[in-house]
Amino acid sequence: MTDAAAAVRVGAPETSDSVGEIRVSAPGKVILHGEHSVVYGRRAVALSLDLRTTLTLTAGGTRLTLDLPAVGIKESWPLGDVEDLWTRLGRPGEPGAAPLSEGQVLQVRKFLALPEDSSSGPHALALLSFFQLYLAILPRPRAATFTVTSQLPTGAGLGSSAAYGVCLSAALLQLAGRGGEVSLEEVNAWAFRSEQVVHGTPSGIDNSICTFGGAVSFKAGQCTPLGAPPLRVLLVNTGVPRSTKALVAGVAARRRRLPQVVEPLLDAMDALAEQALTTLAALAAAANPQEQDEALAALHELVDVNHALLASLGVSHASLERLVGVAATHALHAKLTGAGGGGFGVVVLGRPGACPEREDACRRELEAAGYQVWHTTLGGPGLTFH
Amino acid sequence: MTDAAAAVRVGAPETSDSVGEIRVSAPGKVILHGEHSVVYGRRAVALSLDLRTTLTLTAGGTRLTLDLPAVGIKESWPLGDVEDLWTRLGRPGEPGAAPLSEGQVLQVRKFLALPEDSSSGPHALALLSFFQLYLAILPRPRAATFTVTSQLPTGAGLGSSAAYGVCLSAALLQLAGRGGEVSLEEVNAWAFRSEQVVHGTPSGIDNSICTFGGAVSFKAGQCTPLGAPPLRVLLVNTGVPRSTKALVAGVAARRRRLPQVVEPLLDAMDALAEQALTTLAALAAAANPQEQDEALAALHELVDVNHALLASLGVSHASLERLVGVAATHALHAKLTGAGGGGFGVVVLGRPGACPEREDACRRELEAAGYQVWHTTLGGPGLTFH
Repeated sequence: MTDAAAAVRVGAPETSDSVGEIRVSAPGKVILHGEHSVVYGRRAVALSLDLRTTLTLTAGGTRLTLDLPAVGIKESWPLGDVEDLWTRLGRPGEPGAAPLSEGQVLQVRKFLALPEDSSSGPHALALLSFFQLYLAILPRPRAATFTVTSQLPTGAGLGSSAAYGVCLSAALLQLAGRGGEVSLEEVNAWAFRSEQVVHGTPSGIDNSICTFGGAVSFKAGQCTPLGAPPLRVLLVNTGVPRSTKALVAGVAARRRRLPQVVEPLLDAMDALAEQALTTLAALAAAANPQEQDEALAALHELVDVNHALLASLGVSHASLERLVGVAATHALHAKLTGAGGGGFGVVVLGRPGACPEREDACRRELEAAGYQVWHTTLGGPGLTFH
Repeated sequence: MTDAAAAVRVGAPETSDSVGEIRVSAPGKVILHGEHSVVYGRRAVALSLDLRTTLTLTAGGTRLTLDLPAVGIKESWPLGDVEDLWTRLGRPGEPGAAPLSEGQVLQVRKFLALPEDSSSGPHALALLSFFQLYLAILPRPRAATFTVTSQLPTGAGLGSSAAYGVCLSAALLQLAGRGGEVSLEEVNAWAFRSEQVVHGTPSGIDNSICTFGGAVSFKAGQCTPLGAPPLRVLLVNTGVPRSTKALVAGVAARRRRLPQVVEPLLDAMDALAEQALTTLAALAAAANPQEQDEALAALHELVDVNHALLASLGVSHASLERLVGVAATHALHAKLTGAGGGGFGVVVLGRPGACPEREDACRRELEAAGYQVWHTTLGGPGLTFH
């Protein structure tokens, strides 16, 4: 499927000279199956989340401006200062788009007055990944304003940093205007570099899903973009903060204590993710409402089983159990998504219009209980040029 | 361990001639691990439940009387009628204690005016298993009154029928007075026959645990009585009726649909039961409070994991999830026990006196929510002669 996905190219009709404004958007992502088990080499399946990050690039003027209202960043540099940095980095000698070396990244950190270690906060990482892509992709510094807005909550495991990197890479590649066409594979590769800045050793799931949309299947370092049928969901924020690191460590400790229990459990989760791929394909191929309902019922069973398996790893939370319980009251199916221990959950809904009353009642009950709920869609389009 | 258990013999000092009153009691049972997975050849671990069934046998008079106030049975037959039945069955020709043949059971059904098929209700089964044991164990009919009371809820999967069969077998063997001593192995074998009347094809777990007490490990038809440390619990009745047959069928259907998921899951449950045996042994061997706490913490983790795995098979219920949630609120650990879908759950407590406030608070909250709660002990003594 990678080749097929790569063949999908997004037309970018304008060349760099004629560009005044570029607008791109990219979706977030939700893990449908494979939380935690993916750490132990089992399959994960993620889908695009139709809460989007939008970047507007306005070329021109005498300054380079980065405006991220959602995270409270608005920084601006005279183009001359950026050109000086460019010269210090030795970029004029570069043959074209090329990643920055470690030494060059250190100089960028200095320019931005960031600490030298990698334990930067989200503010610093947003600046750093912007400069990394800006300096690496453009053939020369350009005065421009980058404004990024997002429907995605940040730091929630919903792919906000990947969507940011995908939008930046796409807009910069279009501004650079080499060949007049922007390849999704190229965007994805640059967004992966951006994710490396933010996450250290990312899996590549997030940038792939935010670039290609649909679904991504991931196992043993291999990331495969797949088509996916649109899947209606309630995305639910429990509002309970969690430490992904502590949750991952908790699973590792349980696996050390009970290897004979946890290993087959991880195998069950792997089989479940495999089955989900088959079921998503059946849903995409469903020829009538009855076939759709059958595929959705199968998907719902996988959701139920997966949530319970994640609970058996110890990563559920009272707020997530309550979410699952409320959904069950309305004959709906929910699971935690992401690291667990609070954070987000997802209620996978049925065929459009099949049971709007139950869906509305569930949403109202969740909101009354203090959850934040988005009625949205998984599996939709990836990077889009507007 | 079977040999060791068999070596434990209960003194029965009085011979049949001197017997006026015999009192015996037997515990119920709780499944700690292996619900549903045992159906697919995986290990189960059951423990005795210190809610006891007590039988008082008063020999003498001219009638045979069976008094089961808990189930609303009080039936009485002139000894002459019972002797006529005895003659019709050809029992005088029997060399001693011997099970009834199928034809003889049919005649007993006729005597009791029970339907000929095996789909009898609990009332009929109580009568039938009584007569089966009475006619098979005694060398000749004896006038006597059998009064059976029980702390065990009936039809709840807590071994009430096995405790009944164990008490009957023990009292009748003592009344028969062959050899002056009653062997637990012999009681167990007769109670198993009684269970066959009630359940058709019983596993033998229930009669073993009610006879020997402690714990019983069961796998692939092999039933092994084990010693067990006393384990303090809250036994909790959700009050939600369930159909064991429907729940077992539901698991079978999920296994058919998702064999690659359910098989490793059952393996995880098997490993979990094995681990429980190790942990129970560690608890029994714990030399100080710290070692006890460590073993109990390990046991609690197994309880948590097992409940979630049962939920992943689809046999939990809102009432059970709520129980687990309430227990978790008080940092306690609960799981469903038995078939699930409602029915009973068990909160496995800690070291005696370690946290009485939390235990009381949990109990109060459960009772306020409408659950029926017994504060009791698992792993205690089996059949006892009083």
